Amino acid sequence: MKKRERANRDSLPGKSSGRNGLLDRRTLLRAGALAAGMAGIGAGLVRAAESVGADAPEWMKTPGRSFSPYGVPSKWQEKVQRAIAAPPGRPGTGSSRTPLHLLEGTITPNGLHFERHHNGVPDIDPSRHELVIHGLVKRPLAFSVETLKRYPLVTEVRFVECSGNSGSFAQAEPQQTTAGGLNGLLSCSEWTGVRLATLLAEAEPNREAKWIIAEGADAAAMSRSVPLEKCLDGAMIALYQNGEAIRPEQGYPMRLLLPGFEGNMNVKWLRRLKVMTEPVNARDETSHYTELMPNGKARQYMFVQNVKSAIVKPSFGMNMNGPGFYEISGLAWSGSGRVTKVEVSADGGKSWAIAALTGPILPKALTRFRLPWQWDGRPSLLMSRATDEKGEVQPTRPAWVSQFAPGQFYHFNGIQGWRVEADGTVKHAYV
Amino acid sequence: MKKRERANRDSLPGKSSGRNGLLDRRTLLRAGALAAGMAGIGAGLVRAAESVGADAPEWMKTPGRSFSPYGVPSKWQEKVQRAIAAPPGRPGTGSSRTPLHLLEGTITPNGLHFERHHNGVPDIDPSRHELVIHGLVKRPLAFSVETLKRYPLVTEVRFVECSGNSGSFAQAEPQQTTAGGLNGLLSCSEWTGVRLATLLAEAEPNREAKWIIAEGADAAAMSRSVPLEKCLDGAMIALYQNGEAIRPEQGYPMRLLLPGFEGNMNVKWLRRLKVMTEPVNARDETSHYTELMPNGKARQYMFVQNVKSAIVKPSFGMNMNGPGFYEISGLAWSGSGRVTKVEVSADGGKSWAIAALTGPILPKALTRFRLPWQWDGRPSLLMSRATDEKGEVQPTRPAWVSQFAPGQFYHFNGIQGWRVEADGTVKHAYV
Repeated sequence: MKKRERANRDSLPGKSSGRNGLLDRRTLLRAGALAAGMAGIGAGLVRAAESVGADAPEWMKTPGRSFSPYGVPSKWQEKVQRAIAAPPGRPGTGSSRTPLHLLEGTITPNGLHFERHHNGVPDIDPSRHELVIHGLVKRPLAFSVETLKRYPLVTEVRFVECSGNSGSFAQAEPQQTTAGGLNGLLSCSEWTGVRLATLLAEAEPNREAKWIIAEGADAAAMSRSVPLEKCLDGAMIALYQNGEAIRPEQGYPMRLLLPGFEGNMNVKWLRRLKVMTEPVNARDETSHYTELMPNGKARQYMFVQNVKSAIVKPSFGMNMNGPGFYEISGLAWSGSGRVTKVEVSADGGKSWAIAALTGPILPKALTRFRLPWQWDGRPSLLMSRATDEKGEVQPTRPAWVSQFAPGQFYHFNGIQGWRVEADGTVKHAYV
Repeated sequence: MKKRERANRDSLPGKSSGRNGLLDRRTLLRAGALAAGMAGIGAGLVRAAESVGADAPEWMKTPGRSFSPYGVPSKWQEKVQRAIAAPPGRPGTGSSRTPLHLLEGTITPNGLHFERHHNGVPDIDPSRHELVIHGLVKRPLAFSVETLKRYPLVTEVRFVECSGNSGSFAQAEPQQTTAGGLNGLLSCSEWTGVRLATLLAEAEPNREAKWIIAEGADAAAMSRSVPLEKCLDGAMIALYQNGEAIRPEQGYPMRLLLPGFEGNMNVKWLRRLKVMTEPVNARDETSHYTELMPNGKARQYMFVQNVKSAIVKPSFGMNMNGPGFYEISGLAWSGSGRVTKVEVSADGGKSWAIAALTGPILPKALTRFRLPWQWDGRPSLLMSRATDEKGEVQPTRPAWVSQFAPGQFYHFNGIQGWRVEADGTVKHAYV
């Protein structure tokens, strides 16, 4: 295994798809690795194959560690962390971001789900926590955690995205940071809980009921107004996240899950739902989470996270290792339903190729897209553009920015770009 | 919120499905919570609803804790652990089980994925680890972790089950333990990695190649023989598990994933794949993981984990809280493909009802099934029976046991039962 040489065979690129080296997404199915030009990736040719094992590493020479009740990542992965942004002096306010550029697939591990807190993470004794449904209902009801677990449960994979995610795109210059730094207020989990519609059927809202005020049991008593219609359509009182009890940072022992709606409305540590005729104009739907328009007025109650995508590989901070085969990979999502198409460009939008989508493609869930690319070593501008089942397509950044007052940063879903330089460095570029 | 009374309304049970209180799986869709008889679950009727907030809990009166780079479960969940069974004096040998009875949905959190080690968990420096493909190939190749990440990746949700899972069913008396204690050598993750077929296409096996020997870099150098056919059909070199790098206990930095095949073959800490004409008769396919037949001979190379199911709620250790509405919930899976049907009985197999399956139903992945049940308070015997897309159905335990020599415990997939006593206790019962 000591002696080897780099594979040095003819590169036989697969059928071209978009221009500038983008290959057809079915290249591998059709042609195999060699034909796709992967020979240059860097697998070492083993000369003395039969010597494998002759010089075993030290971890094969001594017994490994024993079992653990609850596992943690390898110590070699300690840099895979949430990136915390909390203003000085207010440790419970701010956010931490999922390192999307260091992850794969579509599920976010619970330890890396993004955080956004308004007054820190409460430590709630589940035996003392209750969810109350009151206001304009026939039967005001209180549910303990144990009671909720007795109701029929539903399980669904759904993303949660802060409406301030990708907010730096409102700035004049592109922020030079990772894909997670730009878009990491975004995570995706398999959630299990009780349909809110089931509980509301038991409480029976009156005829004049139109809105519900959801309040958290944190020290901010974070509150949002939700249309009753949404509460009856897919809303969940989530108790479990990726199989286990929901984490403290995500609302232990329960949160409101409103698939496709801005993250802030998915109220964590949920303690009450008050049924009303009007929205309440709470602090976090007036001072935050609104869209300031050029005329000085703010649009409120813009709930849906629009169709969006981001390439995470390659991206800022990942240097290319010379010309050759690379997989372009990223995430696409829509608060309106399923992603139906992701197009990728390697020439700044002059040509586009259709990326492969990893199934199952679920509504309001992250969808992984991939496309093989033969980089010729020249400067290239990578972009992705997603379309959802409603036919909505991501706008360009200039088109998105032009709708709002300068600096308005909520709900950015414009097309994003990465510039690959000739020396292999990858920079964030506006497109 | 202080004053309240228990809801005490007429129970209007949904349409009956099987006998002994099993309701139609569509009850909720059709009739809502009240009609399904859920009024008795125990939601408290709130009298003084407007007083909500008047006596806020202490965690709303003081700022919560700040952000964390990598989160952990709530301290109130510390009992949700893997159950470790390691023989005395051999800390690196044995297993730990996923607490299936305490989890929900289908994804297993990485910290709770079952473990089975033969000489402990090695601490592998990923920069020094390589996967070598050698033997009967045109080009013996070595792949570093970084090199493998440059290949096209695939993402798939798949279960891994130890072939010794549920082995206690071979005993004469039912083991009185939890659903996780019985069946917890079973977990399900979203895996991401490189198709082994892609790497083999580059190495090019010779025509006489029929088997591959997979070897781990643990101190046991755990090895298994795998038919080349399987290596070309769905096999993956897994690098990521539920989004993040694969955990040390699951093979960091890489494992072989052979969807549907017995867990032991999914070699962890994978360091080499040697292409051969015959299987190697390694220690762990001769002294273990074989099926001893009544004639004293052992069947070897029985790879597929057959269709199987287990009710996890209610199950041993969960006391029923009086007659009324309960959801029966469990997991079904098959190493041959998709689960197509799960039937549930509440009367020891005299009648069966069709459970609802939570989609998307993926091949070789755990599938959650659910069925509403009105328990009348009398002793009941709960059972589940799964069918897969090949038409295979779980056998009864006696039919399964009769095939083998006494005590043979690998690959148990017989029908399981829980006896609900009149006092609400739940016991393990053979059926």
